Amino acid sequence: MKQTDNGRFKEQLQIKPYKKNVSYSYTLGAFPTYELILSKPEVVHKVLIHSGYTDEESLRTLCIKNSIPLEVNDKLIGRLSDKDNCFVAGIFTKYSCELSKEKPHIVLVNPSNMGNMGTIIRTIVGFGIYNMAIIQPSADIFNPKSIRASMGALFKLNFQLYDSFDEYRRQYSSHDVFTFMLNKEHTINIKDCPKPKLFSLVFGNEARGLDDSFLKVGTSVMIPQTSDVDSLNLTIAVGIGAYEFTRETD
Amino acid sequence: MKQTDNGRFKEQLQIKPYKKNVSYSYTLGAFPTYELILSKPEVVHKVLIHSGYTDEESLRTLCIKNSIPLEVNDKLIGRLSDKDNCFVAGIFTKYSCELSKEKPHIVLVNPSNMGNMGTIIRTIVGFGIYNMAIIQPSADIFNPKSIRASMGALFKLNFQLYDSFDEYRRQYSSHDVFTFMLNKEHTINIKDCPKPKLFSLVFGNEARGLDDSFLKVGTSVMIPQTSDVDSLNLTIAVGIGAYEFTRETD
Repeated sequence: MKQTDNGRFKEQLQIKPYKKNVSYSYTLGAFPTYELILSKPEVVHKVLIHSGYTDEESLRTLCIKNSIPLEVNDKLIGRLSDKDNCFVAGIFTKYSCELSKEKPHIVLVNPSNMGNMGTIIRTIVGFGIYNMAIIQPSADIFNPKSIRASMGALFKLNFQLYDSFDEYRRQYSSHDVFTFMLNKEHTINIKDCPKPKLFSLVFGNEARGLDDSFLKVGTSVMIPQTSDVDSLNLTIAVGIGAYEFTRETD
Repeated sequence: MKQTDNGRFKEQLQIKPYKKNVSYSYTLGAFPTYELILSKPEVVHKVLIHSGYTDEESLRTLCIKNSIPLEVNDKLIGRLSDKDNCFVAGIFTKYSCELSKEKPHIVLVNPSNMGNMGTIIRTIVGFGIYNMAIIQPSADIFNPKSIRASMGALFKLNFQLYDSFDEYRRQYSSHDVFTFMLNKEHTINIKDCPKPKLFSLVFGNEARGLDDSFLKVGTSVMIPQTSDVDSLNLTIAVGIGAYEFTRETD
């Protein structure tokens, strides 16, 4: 992947509909664009607005304050968005982050759906968890669909990509690991398990969950559920996990 | 809406891609079709399989047991599904239900997204809540997209449609009502609120939430969250609500 060196693009980018291997991505809609500018102004290349956008002044002020070019460009916004009601877009350089060693982590193993990825980011940031590891292969965290589903919460998150869980674990070995298993034989109820301050909550792929090799890693946890469903949806499982582990005890 | 009288269609239906105002709908995929046959055999008109389906025998046995016609029809499955990997579909007559007066309810006010609706159904059935009221206008619960997102849990749910919350409330007045509000001024933390056996958890539309008139109804509840997100996604809020209200106390 081509990356510009740190900070703002200097050259003129030829912006095209998104592909995974390009060095930039974009926010679609005013809300995630504001989140982008407020959280990561240094990576913003340009803000686009549609001539029909009615709330230009506050956005223009924010762009000026952060020395970000603002451009009225109906045609380009139309090309980038598949929805008619998109009036604002923010072009930014992809960036990398490092997870905090002192904070809890969420670990997603091979998440495959961009909407789920974004919803999970929005949810965990809502519960005060700002660090997420992603084990590859996975959905593209910088795809505009992931960003849109995150409602811009992506820009408040530290994330890191790994080729294997072991690689993640070697780097962050002090966290207590909790694996969320569909196999219910050797697991303990999430309600009853210890809740240390420094935890990694590990969730598998939407279709397959975590394979049984994860039963040997840390503590295997399950969220109690009726036999009337096959399993909970991944985003719900992460939501319950993040809620329960950050829930103040009675 | 046209409804056949109770039970199986007798006449030959002309099955077309789904529309809201027709009297039938369909499941797409083996898993929701099994759930349909197992939970509501009396409304199933016909099961379709693709000639490439490799697990025909167990499905055929189940259909014979329930006197449901099974038809190999690649062309019709192709017309009904927009995905290439759909090998099984179940055609059924839409039906109506009544909520249980003795069981807890979820109430969705104007839910607009079919995927969310299905995910919510899957989630609440997973947490043992089998009764849901929907205040109109709303997304179509019988749309194949809702059914697919529910993974067939729809067929285990009692649901009822209402034109207003008041209409629902008049019919089920013994439930303790808890309204999930985005307005955080007059609400109590979900963790601290009483959890009676007979409750109605009320959630607003994806974009607007519940308007302030709901502050006057029952107990207003909030799920604590950081200021780094605008709000939780509706499906996550319902998931946390259902989890917390059915969670055994310590």
